[in-house]
Amino acid sequence: MKKITLVGGGLAGSLLSIYLAKRGLEVDLYERRPDMRTVDISAGRSINMALSARGIYALREVDVLDDIMQQAIAMRGRMIHAVDGTLSFLPYGKDDSEVIYSISRGGLNMALLSAAERQHGVRIHFNEQCTHYDVRTGTTTFQNADSNATKTIETSVVIGTDGSASAIRTAMLSVPRFNFSQHYLDHGYKELTIPPDAGGGFQIEKHALHIWPRGQYMLIALPNPDGSFTCTLFLPFEGELSFENLQNEQAVRRFFEQHFPDAVPLMPTLIDDFFTNPTGALATVRCWPWRVGGRAALLGDAAHAIVPFFGQGMNCAFEDCTVLNQCIEQHEGDWERIFIEYERERKVNADAIADLALANFIEMRDSVADAGFALKKDVELALEKRFPDRFIPKYSMVSFHRIPYAVAQARGRQQAAILERLCRDIDGVEGLDWGVAKRIIEQELPLVKQEKF
Amino acid sequence: MKKITLVGGGLAGSLLSIYLAKRGLEVDLYERRPDMRTVDISAGRSINMALSARGIYALREVDVLDDIMQQAIAMRGRMIHAVDGTLSFLPYGKDDSEVIYSISRGGLNMALLSAAERQHGVRIHFNEQCTHYDVRTGTTTFQNADSNATKTIETSVVIGTDGSASAIRTAMLSVPRFNFSQHYLDHGYKELTIPPDAGGGFQIEKHALHIWPRGQYMLIALPNPDGSFTCTLFLPFEGELSFENLQNEQAVRRFFEQHFPDAVPLMPTLIDDFFTNPTGALATVRCWPWRVGGRAALLGDAAHAIVPFFGQGMNCAFEDCTVLNQCIEQHEGDWERIFIEYERERKVNADAIADLALANFIEMRDSVADAGFALKKDVELALEKRFPDRFIPKYSMVSFHRIPYAVAQARGRQQAAILERLCRDIDGVEGLDWGVAKRIIEQELPLVKQEKF
Repeated sequence: MKKITLVGGGLAGSLLSIYLAKRGLEVDLYERRPDMRTVDISAGRSINMALSARGIYALREVDVLDDIMQQAIAMRGRMIHAVDGTLSFLPYGKDDSEVIYSISRGGLNMALLSAAERQHGVRIHFNEQCTHYDVRTGTTTFQNADSNATKTIETSVVIGTDGSASAIRTAMLSVPRFNFSQHYLDHGYKELTIPPDAGGGFQIEKHALHIWPRGQYMLIALPNPDGSFTCTLFLPFEGELSFENLQNEQAVRRFFEQHFPDAVPLMPTLIDDFFTNPTGALATVRCWPWRVGGRAALLGDAAHAIVPFFGQGMNCAFEDCTVLNQCIEQHEGDWERIFIEYERERKVNADAIADLALANFIEMRDSVADAGFALKKDVELALEKRFPDRFIPKYSMVSFHRIPYAVAQARGRQQAAILERLCRDIDGVEGLDWGVAKRIIEQELPLVKQEKF
Repeated sequence: MKKITLVGGGLAGSLLSIYLAKRGLEVDLYERRPDMRTVDISAGRSINMALSARGIYALREVDVLDDIMQQAIAMRGRMIHAVDGTLSFLPYGKDDSEVIYSISRGGLNMALLSAAERQHGVRIHFNEQCTHYDVRTGTTTFQNADSNATKTIETSVVIGTDGSASAIRTAMLSVPRFNFSQHYLDHGYKELTIPPDAGGGFQIEKHALHIWPRGQYMLIALPNPDGSFTCTLFLPFEGELSFENLQNEQAVRRFFEQHFPDAVPLMPTLIDDFFTNPTGALATVRCWPWRVGGRAALLGDAAHAIVPFFGQGMNCAFEDCTVLNQCIEQHEGDWERIFIEYERERKVNADAIADLALANFIEMRDSVADAGFALKKDVELALEKRFPDRFIPKYSMVSFHRIPYAVAQARGRQQAAILERLCRDIDGVEGLDWGVAKRIIEQELPLVKQEKF
């Protein structure tokens, strides 16, 4: 039986181990950290994920979806908080079936690890940090965090699922003609919290992703099952309004009271959280190729870390697993062929979602606050209801469909131009000229059904 | 006395060690390879450098220029070889003082190592490979190639002069917010040779850089003091005309006879060279920042590897040394300040020469073959003679002046547009409308003297 070594037991690695074991492969999954089910490793980063169509599809394929959905909270749209406290709700989808789900990274990871352990063929090794991958011999070296002992493993196939700082990818830097970039945003992030109310209920709307958009920066909040919200402040590291200039309690309090006045009373531990939790950085990582012959490949953030603003990092990694699984099915045993097909299929899409995620930061922190933005969202959803085979809003293509990201990006650009024309002189959906809309859309947008799903 | 650790004893490291020791600093220079003065390490890569103004300035500053110029051969221009064997000579500069110098990488490196050894304060340690740099503690670990023994050095300042695959830079990948990219060309290169004639003389013009421009690929040749030429074929790795398709003697011979017929009789060892020498890859490396606090910095290719087509990789690295030396003089002892000023001064210029070098590949392999190109070169040099304070050809700004690369790039763009207008309807310099030229140049190009040299 073929043995596969997976380096990294995060979300991508633990899901992939199940996929592979279900195919009858023998999987050794090595994880740098201790078992998160017995040791708290959150370190001020509880982090919520937004689970959507691609992630749901993958979880269903390996039969763990039902289990996981018990921890999930549906978010039906964005709740925009203006500075004066005015709320406006912008639905994500055309109906109640089109929602995304708030889920805790830790909870999901633990559920996947347990499911992997239940799966015949998966062995998980915790506290084993990959310290070296030899791109010529294909051997992998691990150091045990408890004993400091090192061991070198020889397997014919290694997959790096070890995240944005991937050790396998770092080793690949020495492969001739390996292209690589990591580029950080000028913004950092800080995790904060809104606790449940006295009765254990939600202090603000449960079924929404809350946004306080302020142009160059923003605060967001995602719901948790215990009634709390995990909040994240995205702010430049340097400059006038920046983390650099929020060095003491007074400055932080003044900043929040001025820009997020309705959030302050909801956050009794604001100051503590602010100075206890680390300031995180956000990078986009791209590389090519994603493999070394048929011996090693990268998957998930290891191959393509993206910024979090489209809520697609995890969903994209899970879709990688789905596609790799298909490639294994088609080219059983020929790992070079499998990896060639997998990287060819995924690279263009990973690049597309990386760009879409960067663009969505500007949308979330700035555009959503415009009246014109709300109008366009309304018109988009109305057009989708009328022309469901041709006009699907970009957000929906990405979040509620499995249309390849690159296709969603290309159609999204075309649709944005059409939307611009249709919305130019109207104040609301009722002003839309349906005749013009029909003509333009049928002429310019090919049927979505013809696309590859 | 302040101790400095330099990692990498190539061209940049050996020159920098002299600069630093001349300031009274104590320098330990560690080099991965054995001493190239006693062991041949060329491995099919003899490599010629094109030494020009910035490099010459730096070598003169540390008093090693005279020594080195004895090995140098002046190249006065490009000798273009058409397929039918027709030669045309395009001078580089406006007169005989404006030339670049062909010099062997190995010879230059050896001369610099010897000069470094003669300099009080420099100690060179060969066979010591940097295996780790700890970005938090600032300790550097080396492994000895003979004994395999490792040692860990603690110095307060480490400078990575360890080239495009820098170990110090790789360690910096884990520094929060460290931006990095390495991007390879689709073209590779292969070193070949034209030996001296029977009498020990040069088979083709000695004082020229020879180019066989063929659109998507090219052959070049640079003279050596022994009468030989070091040739380099630049060709795509894959595709119809590519290294991939030159797998046997017959294919190589056919390819050369078809595209470089006048070169074939000059290269008796063509087939041997082709299959013995490795096929090299060419990358552009960018990163930011170039330092870790005041503890570590990158210099030369370690900070900014560029493709070789402007002949500026070494010259740029040497100019880094000149600028770092100025920063040390201005901020003596305050290494954080020194490194901040150094990287601020150099980053924008390193980015500019990286772009200029990529653009020059197209010029060398393609544009130089056009009649229009020769006309523009003629007109450029004529304009410089008439308006020496305003119009200096881009090639000259980069190669014969120390105008910052970023300024050369910006002025180069302006000048290209002006040149386009002036050359539109003429066949030769004699057709130039000097009145129009004067008006445009005086209106649009500020005095060069006002720029910072």
